Amino acid sequence: MNQVLYVYSFNDGNKSMKSLLGSKGANLAEMARIGLPVPPGFIVSTEACNLYLEKSEGLWPELKEEILNSLKHLEAQTGRTFGGRSPLLLSVRSGAVISMPGMMDTVLNLGLNPATVEALAAETGNRRFALDCYRRFIQMFADVVLKVGHHHFENVLTAARKQKKVKSDAELDDSDLEMIVTEYTNIVRKEKGSDFPLEPLDQLFLAVEAVFSSWNTERAQVYRQAHRIADSLGTAVNVQAMVFGNLGEDSGTGVAFTRNPSTGEAKLYGEYLLNAQGEDVVAGTRTPRPLEELKEDMPAIYDQFLHICAVLENEYREMQDIEFTIERRKLYMLQTRAGKRTAPAAVRIAVDLVHEGLITKDEALLKVDPDQLEQLLHRRIDPKAKLEAITDGLPASPGAASGQVVFDADRAQELAKAGKKVLLVRPETTPDDIHGIIAAQGILTSRGGMTSHAAVVARGMGKPCVCGCEELHIDLGKKVFFIRGEQFAEGTILSIDGSTGRVFRGEVPLIDPEFSPEYYELVGWADQVRRLKVRANADNPEDARLAVEMGAQGIGLCRTEHMFMAADRVPVVQKMILAPNLVEREAALAELLPMQQADFKGIFREMVGFPVTVRLLDPPLHEFLPDRDELLIEVYRLRCENDPDGSLREKESLLQKINAISEFNPMLGHRGCRLGLVYPEIYRMQVRAVFQALFDLIDEGQDAGKLLPEIMIPLVGHRTEIKAMKRLVDDTATAVFAERGKKIEYLVGTMIELPRACLVAGQLAEVAAFFSFGTNDLTQTTLGYSRDDSESKFLPFYLQHKILEVNPFAEFDREGVGRLVKLAVEEGRGARNNLKVGVCGEHGGDPASIMFFDRIGLDYVSCSPYRLPIARLAAARAALGG
Amino acid sequence: MNQVLYVYSFNDGNKSMKSLLGSKGANLAEMARIGLPVPPGFIVSTEACNLYLEKSEGLWPELKEEILNSLKHLEAQTGRTFGGRSPLLLSVRSGAVISMPGMMDTVLNLGLNPATVEALAAETGNRRFALDCYRRFIQMFADVVLKVGHHHFENVLTAARKQKKVKSDAELDDSDLEMIVTEYTNIVRKEKGSDFPLEPLDQLFLAVEAVFSSWNTERAQVYRQAHRIADSLGTAVNVQAMVFGNLGEDSGTGVAFTRNPSTGEAKLYGEYLLNAQGEDVVAGTRTPRPLEELKEDMPAIYDQFLHICAVLENEYREMQDIEFTIERRKLYMLQTRAGKRTAPAAVRIAVDLVHEGLITKDEALLKVDPDQLEQLLHRRIDPKAKLEAITDGLPASPGAASGQVVFDADRAQELAKAGKKVLLVRPETTPDDIHGIIAAQGILTSRGGMTSHAAVVARGMGKPCVCGCEELHIDLGKKVFFIRGEQFAEGTILSIDGSTGRVFRGEVPLIDPEFSPEYYELVGWADQVRRLKVRANADNPEDARLAVEMGAQGIGLCRTEHMFMAADRVPVVQKMILAPNLVEREAALAELLPMQQADFKGIFREMVGFPVTVRLLDPPLHEFLPDRDELLIEVYRLRCENDPDGSLREKESLLQKINAISEFNPMLGHRGCRLGLVYPEIYRMQVRAVFQALFDLIDEGQDAGKLLPEIMIPLVGHRTEIKAMKRLVDDTATAVFAERGKKIEYLVGTMIELPRACLVAGQLAEVAAFFSFGTNDLTQTTLGYSRDDSESKFLPFYLQHKILEVNPFAEFDREGVGRLVKLAVEEGRGARNNLKVGVCGEHGGDPASIMFFDRIGLDYVSCSPYRLPIARLAAARAALGG
Repeated sequence: MNQVLYVYSFNDGNKSMKSLLGSKGANLAEMARIGLPVPPGFIVSTEACNLYLEKSEGLWPELKEEILNSLKHLEAQTGRTFGGRSPLLLSVRSGAVISMPGMMDTVLNLGLNPATVEALAAETGNRRFALDCYRRFIQMFADVVLKVGHHHFENVLTAARKQKKVKSDAELDDSDLEMIVTEYTNIVRKEKGSDFPLEPLDQLFLAVEAVFSSWNTERAQVYRQAHRIADSLGTAVNVQAMVFGNLGEDSGTGVAFTRNPSTGEAKLYGEYLLNAQGEDVVAGTRTPRPLEELKEDMPAIYDQFLHICAVLENEYREMQDIEFTIERRKLYMLQTRAGKRTAPAAVRIAVDLVHEGLITKDEALLKVDPDQLEQLLHRRIDPKAKLEAITDGLPASPGAASGQVVFDADRAQELAKAGKKVLLVRPETTPDDIHGIIAAQGILTSRGGMTSHAAVVARGMGKPCVCGCEELHIDLGKKVFFIRGEQFAEGTILSIDGSTGRVFRGEVPLIDPEFSPEYYELVGWADQVRRLKVRANADNPEDARLAVEMGAQGIGLCRTEHMFMAADRVPVVQKMILAPNLVEREAALAELLPMQQADFKGIFREMVGFPVTVRLLDPPLHEFLPDRDELLIEVYRLRCENDPDGSLREKESLLQKINAISEFNPMLGHRGCRLGLVYPEIYRMQVRAVFQALFDLIDEGQDAGKLLPEIMIPLVGHRTEIKAMKRLVDDTATAVFAERGKKIEYLVGTMIELPRACLVAGQLAEVAAFFSFGTNDLTQTTLGYSRDDSESKFLPFYLQHKILEVNPFAEFDREGVGRLVKLAVEEGRGARNNLKVGVCGEHGGDPASIMFFDRIGLDYVSCSPYRLPIARLAAARAALGG
Repeated sequence: MNQVLYVYSFNDGNKSMKSLLGSKGANLAEMARIGLPVPPGFIVSTEACNLYLEKSEGLWPELKEEILNSLKHLEAQTGRTFGGRSPLLLSVRSGAVISMPGMMDTVLNLGLNPATVEALAAETGNRRFALDCYRRFIQMFADVVLKVGHHHFENVLTAARKQKKVKSDAELDDSDLEMIVTEYTNIVRKEKGSDFPLEPLDQLFLAVEAVFSSWNTERAQVYRQAHRIADSLGTAVNVQAMVFGNLGEDSGTGVAFTRNPSTGEAKLYGEYLLNAQGEDVVAGTRTPRPLEELKEDMPAIYDQFLHICAVLENEYREMQDIEFTIERRKLYMLQTRAGKRTAPAAVRIAVDLVHEGLITKDEALLKVDPDQLEQLLHRRIDPKAKLEAITDGLPASPGAASGQVVFDADRAQELAKAGKKVLLVRPETTPDDIHGIIAAQGILTSRGGMTSHAAVVARGMGKPCVCGCEELHIDLGKKVFFIRGEQFAEGTILSIDGSTGRVFRGEVPLIDPEFSPEYYELVGWADQVRRLKVRANADNPEDARLAVEMGAQGIGLCRTEHMFMAADRVPVVQKMILAPNLVEREAALAELLPMQQADFKGIFREMVGFPVTVRLLDPPLHEFLPDRDELLIEVYRLRCENDPDGSLREKESLLQKINAISEFNPMLGHRGCRLGLVYPEIYRMQVRAVFQALFDLIDEGQDAGKLLPEIMIPLVGHRTEIKAMKRLVDDTATAVFAERGKKIEYLVGTMIELPRACLVAGQLAEVAAFFSFGTNDLTQTTLGYSRDDSESKFLPFYLQHKILEVNPFAEFDREGVGRLVKLAVEEGRGARNNLKVGVCGEHGGDPASIMFFDRIGLDYVSCSPYRLPIARLAAARAALGG
């Protein structure tokens, strides 16, 4: 026998070898290693896959030889022969390093042909069983290897059931199945122009190639992109001796989670079907039975299974998702893996595992994906609302969702792109629907159970899902659906509650989320571990209060312009902008002063003891002015109509003013400190409002030492700018202090949003006491992407065509922008030892970005209040190095 | 005597001490040192000035003491007493390190009061002379020290002449002058509320303070900003014993250039007045006589002066601008300095000095300011045009200029800001008019000679100027002017020819410049010295031809979009952009292909043997579409009128399309290679057009080896972009080569316009064969300045208020953008040894920027053809380290 290069026996592997053997293969090997009942088999490695994809020349002779050698070994282990009289049948399954739908997945019963099917019939004494296997094999092989759509075969089955007037395939007999097999092979000949491959070795090699090729299907690529999985990993192929759950009522197959994947409750949670093969459970074509019932059917098997679940949880120190088959009252394990779970479940399981002594607190922190925590913040249906469900199904993935009903994934994607909220409603879902599931607010299916495709994928994505809603009937042809006989058109708005399984008409009232004790425990551990501080971006007292509740250690960005946007203030702001001279502008500013002062008072009151970074006015002034297009048309109209109401001159003058202020590229225009320099009276008003607000609080009895204002100057690029602005702040503060006869400590710092600011950070730090990286704008300028434009124009194309791996506005561009930030931090700290450095762009709430910010030594990240739990956990994980 | 800290005798200095003694003082000391006749004096140093301005506490006791000591020494040298019976009178002059108008300049006859004036009268036996000195002193002192406007005094003089019915001040007698002196002192008392200071020491100290303070007048600051002179230099004060040119017809005063400052001809060029003081010549109040006439008046003095001029040229190895005074047939030198000159004169003088053996070729290159060479490119009046001059004056500064007549500097500046071309027309100009001279196309004065203020300043700036146009009469009150009796209103358009002195009605036809043999000799020397190659930005065959004539060694930037802008092409381009699908877009592109191919053919034909960098389409597509505002109104109109001609739907659809393509920040939007990636068919067409054009030339017999195309991809920020674009170019080239059965060598490179491109330059250089820095866009993104917006919005404010020292679009920002460029060059070359690196932004034609580009090792700069002489000289100077 030659040296093993690409093909490994289960006996050669263990759970640590995922990158070589794929996740499924490594776990099968591990289960075999610890003595669990696993049907024997071998694994074609991911290295073989990568080489195959690189060569593009099919399977090469040495690889085929290795597979043949492993096959011989398997024949010896099982005492059966591939294609022989006591036929060895195989299950062939894809097995990526990180498990992902959208790939070939599974072909069962491989090795059957007219000769071996008769041998199997003779051997088992069950011709119906043998024919059922053959029919399943042809259907699966044709679908996943030969790419003949499975609806062709479903139509044949449906017709056969109809003709025989039976409800389930189980009621079809030998002759029905013989006829079905004949029709199946005819379909393949017609669709492919060639015969179904009958030689078992051909079947095997074709299946291996199909697994390899499935790595690069569009579906798989979309999935990898959505989940940030590297294209270079490749997939392994698991080849395993078949065991049969469809050998009669003493056989069966099932799936189970060792804990509840929806709530995290430490209770076995599974489903099974008797006389069935694996795909029957997962595909949702038959609604399976709860695992508890197995206790009655086969108590010994049930106990053995419970024991194995405990062993696996101990072994993996993690909740497991398990597939099993019972062949004539013998239990076989077909798969184990970490189970996908909702965010509440993830939190509860991690905390429970700590309490059970299986993992440490640090490990618990690393087990919960921070991105997933966002789900905890999902609003849910107001329990006080008097709602009547029009039907219900299985509570497959918690959360509430509303949207217009669509029946197919393409349409769901299309409408979602157009900004609509949609609910994907299907009899069942398949991996082909993945883009529709991504696009939908929630999923509702009429068939399938808690472990069906829809349920598993929805939970993985944190989308609400109701499954197996049996009162729902969908007529895909007529594009209507019926619930309890009532007809609804596609496009009807429904709501679902994935936590209870209920379905409602129209939209429903939602309330804010509450957090579980486990959540508080986990983020408490995170707070103990993390080095990075977390702050929130908040512009009003309500957000400030929420921020504190969510664990903020300060406000990292208070955008003062949002205070200008209120309906009652816009006229005053416009008066200020359009003022023909300083006197009138200062008069308008005097009107704004008490308003802004009241805002600041409210915010600082919430944030006693915490620093508050107040950013002075940033956006270009024309953002506050009336819509130019409308005015343009209005002026035209007034001219045409000879100025009916005498307002033409005023409108013309306004238009002229707007034209004068308008900019080709406002993002790069007269904004930020450029406004503060040209119109210092605006910034002076804002600074005065801050300090007067602080004195108001002191007058109310607040401790001055606990008021921590940090005045932030936006869009600085030159030292001269921050110098002039710091002088303005200092002068204004000094004036207010003189009026009040008292001082308040404060800092003046700068936002870093321009590449130049990073490049001269040492100079800026001589003046600024803190830097706050505005990574949104810094990304825009460094990459030359206008966020407003690119996200609707070329960015989707860039992501789809892999010009960009990720959206740089969602995940921080470490290579480009990151290099500038790192440089600015180093040189800023070089010039001022105790420079405070933080991030206040949206990346401050992105876990992957937080990892980077921790590594380069920032002091804090600031994000929206709702992302604080994510930031706290991500910061902890960063501190733990992972 | 105390140690000398701040005050230096002429005997203590020499010409190398300019930074301490100011330029004027150092040169006076030098002339004294080499034995030329200089009235004795002393210098209060620039250090004293800086300390004075820093302290803001007036002159301090130690400084006063030093001045008194020097004054005593001067009394000893001259045998006269300050304020005494044989009175020492002083001239007090400012003396900056780099000479600049707009500062206090000069007070003559300081030390006079009712007592000393009588002593002077007695001593000289010339009471009229003494009174004339006194009158001048009060007038100058009041003007420059006490800030009492000189028009007050002019009015008194005018009234006195009128009353006496004489034309010149020289005809006023003792009693007239006595009366004038009385009125002058009354004016001072009235305007200042205090008496004219009569104590000579007070006069001196006040004058010294006035010189110091004049450093920070707005006028001086504007001048420094325009000439990039550091604020920190400060000015010295020159205090010198008076000699008198107004002692009668055996006395006089004059100025001279050792060579012709307008043409460079090696011939003494000067003017003088008898019985006059210095300001009479320079201020243009009396039109002086050509220096040649002095040969007749005082042949010995004339010969002595010629001799001194030769000595000074030998000493300074440079053309000198000299002031002198003759007191009773004795010659005194009052100033020498490098003379301001026109660009043709600068070139000729530098080349002549080399031929005369006074300087080396390298020194000649360093003597000519590259920025000034732009003047050589000024268009001049077509000599073939049949033009009739309406009057003429002195040809004070060459070149032709047209514009509407304005009478004051403020108005000139105002109109120029509004985009108007103006001609500043004044009786004479003063340093107060400097902003108007900057703003005007040219200057026309009715008084003053070739060395008047207007003439000197205009020559320094390279502006056309006609002086002393005696037939021109200006009525400033009525805002009209008369020429030969004909009345013209302000705003009339005139043209002047500063090379001949002629004045024309309206605009005149201009022709392209021709270059002198000296020019060719000088740039030839530059080409031998420089390391940097120079290329031109050219988009059509005419510009390419011009580029070669101007010395381009290739085209560094051929903007292909300019080829889309021709009137006959815009409809096809619009069809291409608005195409609803690929088929129609490719049909439109097929129409564009032969047009673009013909353009490329024409360009490459001009550039045989030189590389041509072709940049693929760069601007956002909506730049080619109709004006959105107009369309918006049109659609509104059609809707109101119920679609009278049935075009509403089409217009609506066009508007919708434009709206869809429009961007908030097009600068950061869908442009550059982002277009090439999303619409690869556009770039494929362009690349095909390039190669088909090259094959056309080969078919015509061109040597394929001499066609050097370089395809440049714009706006790259990620490696994936340049990789995909290089593949597109390679594939298209390969396809054309296959069709023609022949290959052509070519390079694919990238423009570097984004900070990110600089930060990942190493990655880009793995794919790109060359980098061309688009420093315009790189400045926009690095600084976050939209050029279109900032230059009309905050940038003028920033420059005026010193937030920015220079306009970063004119002079490259070394500290910010430069750091990125340097990094990109280093890391790009690190990844690809033979990476070609150039600059194609406008900075490629700016001497200060070229210095930097040379230092960081770029291979070439590319600029507009007209800036090539500047770039060639600047590159040579950079290589010479200066």
